[in-house]
Amino acid sequence: KMVSVAINGYGTIGKRVADAVAAQKDMKIVGVSKTKPDFEARMALKKGYDLYISIPEREKLFQEAGIEISGTVEDMIEEADIIVDATPEGIGAKNLKMYREKGVKAIFQGGEKHEDIGLSFNSFTNYEDSLGADYTRVVSCNTTGLCRTLKPIDDLAGIKKVRAVMVRRAADPPQVKKGPVNAIVPNPPTVPSHHGPDLRTVMYGININTVALLVPTTLMHQHNIMVELEDPVDIEEIKEELDKTSRVMLVKAGEGLASTAEIMEYARELGRPRNDLYEIPVWEESLNIVDGELYYMQAVHQEADAVPESVDAIRALLELEEDNKRSIEKTNKAMGIL
Amino acid sequence: KMVSVAINGYGTIGKRVADAVAAQKDMKIVGVSKTKPDFEARMALKKGYDLYISIPEREKLFQEAGIEISGTVEDMIEEADIIVDATPEGIGAKNLKMYREKGVKAIFQGGEKHEDIGLSFNSFTNYEDSLGADYTRVVSCNTTGLCRTLKPIDDLAGIKKVRAVMVRRAADPPQVKKGPVNAIVPNPPTVPSHHGPDLRTVMYGININTVALLVPTTLMHQHNIMVELEDPVDIEEIKEELDKTSRVMLVKAGEGLASTAEIMEYARELGRPRNDLYEIPVWEESLNIVDGELYYMQAVHQEADAVPESVDAIRALLELEEDNKRSIEKTNKAMGIL
Amino acid sequence: KMVSVAINGYGTIGKRVADAVAAQKDMKIVGVSKTKPDFEARMALKKGYDLYISIPEREKLFQEAGIEISGTVEDMIEEADIIVDATPEGIGAKNLKMYREKGVKAIFQGGEKHEDIGLSFNSFTNYEDSLGADYTRVVSCNTTGLCRTLKPIDDLAGIKKVRAVMVRRAADPPQVKKGPVNAIVPNPPTVPSHHGPDLRTVMYGININTVALLVPTTLMHQHNIMVELEDPVDIEEIKEELDKTSRVMLVKAGEGLASTAEIMEYARELGRPRNDLYEIPVWEESLNIVDGELYYMQAVHQEADAVPESVDAIRALLELEEDNKRSIEKTNKAMGIL
Amino acid sequence: KMVSVAINGYGTIGKRVADAVAAQKDMKIVGVSKTKPDFEARMALKKGYDLYISIPEREKLFQEAGIEISGTVEDMIEEADIIVDATPEGIGAKNLKMYREKGVKAIFQGGEKHEDIGLSFNSFTNYEDSLGADYTRVVSCNTTGLCRTLKPIDDLAGIKKVRAVMVRRAADPPQVKKGPVNAIVPNPPTVPSHHGPDLRTVMYGININTVALLVPTTLMHQHNIMVELEDPVDIEEIKEELDKTSRVMLVKAGEGLASTAEIMEYARELGRPRNDLYEIPVWEESLNIVDGELYYMQAVHQEADAVPESVDAIRALLELEEDNKRSIEKTNKAMGIL
Ligand SMILES: NC(=O)c1ccc[n+]([C@@H]2O[C@H](COP(=O)([O-])OP(=O)(O)OC[C@H]3O[C@@H](n4cnc5c(N)ncnc54)[C@H](O)[C@@H]3O)[C@@H](O)[C@H]2O)c1
Ligand SMILES: NC(=O)c1ccc[n+]([C@@H]2O[C@H](COP(=O)([O-])OP(=O)(O)OC[C@H]3O[C@@H](n4cnc5c(N)ncnc54)[C@H](O)[C@@H]3O)[C@@H](O)[C@H]2O)c1
Ligand SMILES: NC(=O)c1ccc[n+]([C@@H]2O[C@H](COP(=O)([O-])OP(=O)(O)OC[C@H]3O[C@@H](n4cnc5c(N)ncnc54)[C@H](O)[C@@H]3O)[C@@H](O)[C@H]2O)c1
Ligand SMILES: NC(=O)c1ccc[n+]([C@@H]2O[C@H](COP(=O)([O-])OP(=O)(O)OC[C@H]3O[C@@H](n4cnc5c(N)ncnc54)[C@H](O)[C@@H]3O)[C@@H](O)[C@H]2O)c1
Repeated sequence: KMVSVAINGYGTIGKRVADAVAAQKDMKIVGVSKTKPDFEARMALKKGYDLYISIPEREKLFQEAGIEISGTVEDMIEEADIIVDATPEGIGAKNLKMYREKGVKAIFQGGEKHEDIGLSFNSFTNYEDSLGADYTRVVSCNTTGLCRTLKPIDDLAGIKKVRAVMVRRAADPPQVKKGPVNAIVPNPPTVPSHHGPDLRTVMYGININTVALLVPTTLMHQHNIMVELEDPVDIEEIKEELDKTSRVMLVKAGEGLASTAEIMEYARELGRPRNDLYEIPVWEESLNIVDGELYYMQAVHQEADAVPESVDAIRALLELEEDNKRSIEKTNKAMGIL
Repeated sequence: KMVSVAINGYGTIGKRVADAVAAQKDMKIVGVSKTKPDFEARMALKKGYDLYISIPEREKLFQEAGIEISGTVEDMIEEADIIVDATPEGIGAKNLKMYREKGVKAIFQGGEKHEDIGLSFNSFTNYEDSLGADYTRVVSCNTTGLCRTLKPIDDLAGIKKVRAVMVRRAADPPQVKKGPVNAIVPNPPTVPSHHGPDLRTVMYGININTVALLVPTTLMHQHNIMVELEDPVDIEEIKEELDKTSRVMLVKAGEGLASTAEIMEYARELGRPRNDLYEIPVWEESLNIVDGELYYMQAVHQEADAVPESVDAIRALLELEEDNKRSIEKTNKAMGIL
Repeated sequence: KMVSVAINGYGTIGKRVADAVAAQKDMKIVGVSKTKPDFEARMALKKGYDLYISIPEREKLFQEAGIEISGTVEDMIEEADIIVDATPEGIGAKNLKMYREKGVKAIFQGGEKHEDIGLSFNSFTNYEDSLGADYTRVVSCNTTGLCRTLKPIDDLAGIKKVRAVMVRRAADPPQVKKGPVNAIVPNPPTVPSHHGPDLRTVMYGININTVALLVPTTLMHQHNIMVELEDPVDIEEIKEELDKTSRVMLVKAGEGLASTAEIMEYARELGRPRNDLYEIPVWEESLNIVDGELYYMQAVHQEADAVPESVDAIRALLELEEDNKRSIEKTNKAMGIL
Repeated sequence: KMVSVAINGYGTIGKRVADAVAAQKDMKIVGVSKTKPDFEARMALKKGYDLYISIPEREKLFQEAGIEISGTVEDMIEEADIIVDATPEGIGAKNLKMYREKGVKAIFQGGEKHEDIGLSFNSFTNYEDSLGADYTRVVSCNTTGLCRTLKPIDDLAGIKKVRAVMVRRAADPPQVKKGPVNAIVPNPPTVPSHHGPDLRTVMYGININTVALLVPTTLMHQHNIMVELEDPVDIEEIKEELDKTSRVMLVKAGEGLASTAEIMEYARELGRPRNDLYEIPVWEESLNIVDGELYYMQAVHQEADAVPESVDAIRALLELEEDNKRSIEKTNKAMGIL
């Protein structure tokens, strides 16, 4: 029997979670919500998703555009065992009240604050803490990216302290109104940034300081990571560990993957839907240990990396799977993740 | 029975033609060629294409990288009924000598000069002139884009004179060494540009002057077109004509498709491989007739638009199909073109 | 005796007009207005301009920042014979009421609508129509750029019809919040754009259709212009005419000025304050006549080109100079314009 | 009496050093060299610099362009007490042989390798080591930027270890052929980068590891610096120290200087020639000490920051000034450095 999932906020993240859920054997999509009758709304229908509207007064706009709707978000919630909320930053926390009233479980995205939701989630670091919970928050694309590689490194060699500089894409590819066109922007200009504390909501007690900035690119974030290790370890062991870690991949600059653009090209060659790269690519050449400190560079496809985590979070909240590894395996298989 | 096609130059265009050919019922890929053992070479093998090398001395590099090769380009030619040459600008013309010696037919890309190949090709304007020919050249992405919309307009209302300003993407997405980062570059700085004469190699006698420039974007070219018409015609007739024209699509800025980036997002939503848009999108809002002159704006996905034309060109040269419409239909169906 | 000029809105345009006015022998700056106590406010004081605030409630913020203010905008108006309003688009029209009440003349910028101000201005095309007027509007950077080259061409050979495609910079250099990062945006997506009618507010009756778009660059706009001429004329005559036209310069792509970036570098070499290029550079290589139609490409330094026009407009409104040529000469000399 | 300086390689760095030298009381420019008759050559003449050519066979090209030359580079050397070599990376090392033969002292730029020149220079860290030397190399823009802030921090609190992530501009503003347009490029993809060892050529023995990447911007580099300190120190002491350090400036994101673009705008407001910022701006908000480790972000105007160092290096080699502080003061005063 399949559980019924509704997506509130069918945007960059929402539309990906919808397709990822639809690909699972134990889940199905009962509806997605849109605020505007744009091309994404048309495509949702074409894919067979029932469309609900979050702003009832706009019903007429959808009618005029010839886009069929099945009701309001409130109607959609009635159909669902669980909601994946992928509305813009801050809206999710407001929606929480509605979900609570309706008595429906919900998963939130990284734009929400941990304190507003009360619990945060990563498939590898704290899956079990969300088992059976009513609400949880999948941490942001950047924080998910940090978890993916720091967890296996911590397991292997113990982490004393992490420093990370996160060079972030300024806008997602279709966000044409956001800049900058030609500048580097410390963001935030204060150090350390909020990404360290965010990581601690799912990787408890880790000692990390982060610095973040924006640069004029749309494709991927890039992370520069320095890890003081507890135990002596060989760089080859680290490589092996990362190589066999799920949702992480080693890439070689020397094989034509020397930039975020070429890595995105690789995702296109892999035939991924929307050229999505769910895995965190780590540049093999960058991995190095100097004086007991591990250095490496990785990239994060911000539109995609946390999507499989949203699927796993559904299994955790609905207790479809006790063991995180089993959920990860199911999700990966259904999504074609390496 | 399927004809055997080899791709010489498995790069941006070559890898797309390979997949497009492999999708046809009357064609199969017998080999593709690479110069370097990079990730694209690995992916070619993964897709099941036999790999041949164009620089025999590099065999060892491929071996060291663990990438299996089936021989040299000369060996590949032996296996093929026809070659699609997608090597960089100017190399194709050099390869022509080799193809002639081997007695194999070949199709070239828009980077080659018309004079060097002797014949040029577009599926809609002059398919029949390449029927049974030994060599032909699929015109460039920009010229193909012009053909696609000017041909139906000419058929409908007659073209007196065309002026077009072509705002070109500076580099393809994975070409990270090419700029500019922040500039507009008249390219060429002389007016009119070579695109007008290039169009006349496939749309004989058309009166057109073009102006071209480069801007710092990777996604698509954008064309601003002004057409003095022979016959009085209503803008709605033009819209209908374009709407029903194969490999052309009307898009609405007002439905969220207000830029080249959002159009590429649309291609992602359509589930296209590599988010390729083979069709030429025309902004519906831009279509207007003022004083008997038609104005419109269109975009060109440079990596993809001429790929179906390469498939059609194979049918023309090998006389698999006398009628261009039948070839276009077959190609479209196999590639999922709207 | 010098006339007293106040600048309402000390931003991109306002700060340049302030310096240009301060450089004139017959004018002085009695105050400039700011809304925020930022680095530009500090620099205004350092340059010796009295600072007034447009939002009186913010006085405390200026005090806290240690930035001395001389009063409110209303106070500033009392000190002035004329106001140059360089507030953001649409605010100027609102300010007009205040200026009218205070009985002070004012000059507006291109972001305001012609209908709201009632009169528009260009130094070369219709200076005399603003002589003694109370209010006038200096047309936008793009329209000013069109005037500069179309006027001498019209004088020389007569203009039958103009078509122009205007490739606009997406944001000014310090505007880091505006995008796109990687896209071409038809803007407006309707054709023809408003630039043609705008030109007719200062170059009466000219037959022109324009198309406009945005591209991800900050430095300059670029125009592609096609002019059907009345009279037969030689391209060399056109070059000579443009070469001797004030505030126009011919540049050679072949001499290293092949892009907007290199032209901005040229302005740096000229030692211009803020590397401002008041002149409209026309690419010499692009100038060509085909079938009685003149083609050329020019660039527009949007931050600077209309600034000398604002100075001339002061002379027109205050009747400091009856003859536009005499004002242009004075302005040019004081600003070091070629 | 003034010493005679010649500039070999009048490009981005060379033209700035020429103007900086010309502004000093104890130096004069006797010639500059160009390889091509472009707009920069014309401007050199206009500024009153005698022009010499590095490729004698091109004399005719300069003649045809009407650009007067005074001889070859070899002739220029005869006129000079010292050469500032600002030719592209690697050419300087080749020129060294010629300078040696001619018995003339020379200063090289950061593109050359330390080993090829034998001695490296920074005004603050090791001025005295170049006193009376024949050849020295001004370290690169990035390394100079690191020296500027690390030296006073080391003096104040002692540096145990530095980690720095250097986000570099992909191309200088007029370099329109260099990319990427839309990507982040680990450069080098190996960690640590060469910048640490380069720093040690002028700041002996410092413990530093660096990571470097390229991003699609032209304006400035941006550095993210983490310094483990020897001695306990208050962040206010660090701020005071940096504030009073020559060629360093504190900037506030909160005062509108929140990005590299707005800092460049500030340089324009300061009225700097070519909007050059010789000082290293440090974001005041970013300065923070966490667990005895200092964090901060700074920017580097790559075209300009090392230019005053080249002037000081002339004084060191020619022993015009024994004391680095006296040279720094003279240079600063002549160049208007804060
Ligand atoms: N884009 C990324 O890179 C990224 C990565 C990881 C996490 N996130 C997080 O995911 C969440 C969604 O971000 P996104 O990038 O997908 O945003 P988005 O703007 O692309 O999509 C949000 C969708 O929600 C809809 N919406 C807006 N208000 C709504 C409302 N009141 N009710 C229902 N729907 C509403 C919008 O129409 C839109 O379709 C945010 O928390 C964000 O921080 C984004
Ligand atoms: N990229 C575009 O936007 C585009 C659009 C339309 C047409 N074209 C034309 O298509 C052709 C190919 O361009 P591309 O963009 O695919 O180039 P590309 O550089 O992406 O691919 C060319 C491929 O040819 C290989 N190659 C190089 N030298 C070779 C040789 N001597 N023998 C065999 N293979 C060799 C390269 O390794 C590479 O894989 C050119 O004529 C180009 O003008 C390109
Ligand atoms: N930037 C350009 O490229 C350009 C070119 C030509 C014309 N223009 C026109 O010039 C005008 C100003 O544009 P800009 O680019 O200089 O804008 P800007 O935002 O750089 O500057 C506007 C200034 O006005 C101030 N301001 C805002 N509200 C105000 C108010 N109510 N009262 C007083 N001051 C106020 C702002 O603080 C700012 O300093 C607009 O009409 C614009 O369309 C701009
Ligand atoms: N641009 C920067 O950001 C920057 C910053 C610091 C240091 N540097 C270093 O400064 C040096 C110069 O770099 P640049 O950016 O000024 O380069 P550039 O290309 O702007 O200028 C080099 C100049 O040298 C000339 N030249 C070339 N070959 C020559 C030869 N054989 N003899 C004489 N002149 C010749 C060129 O014509 C050009 O005018 C390099 O070592 C570079 O690494 C550059």
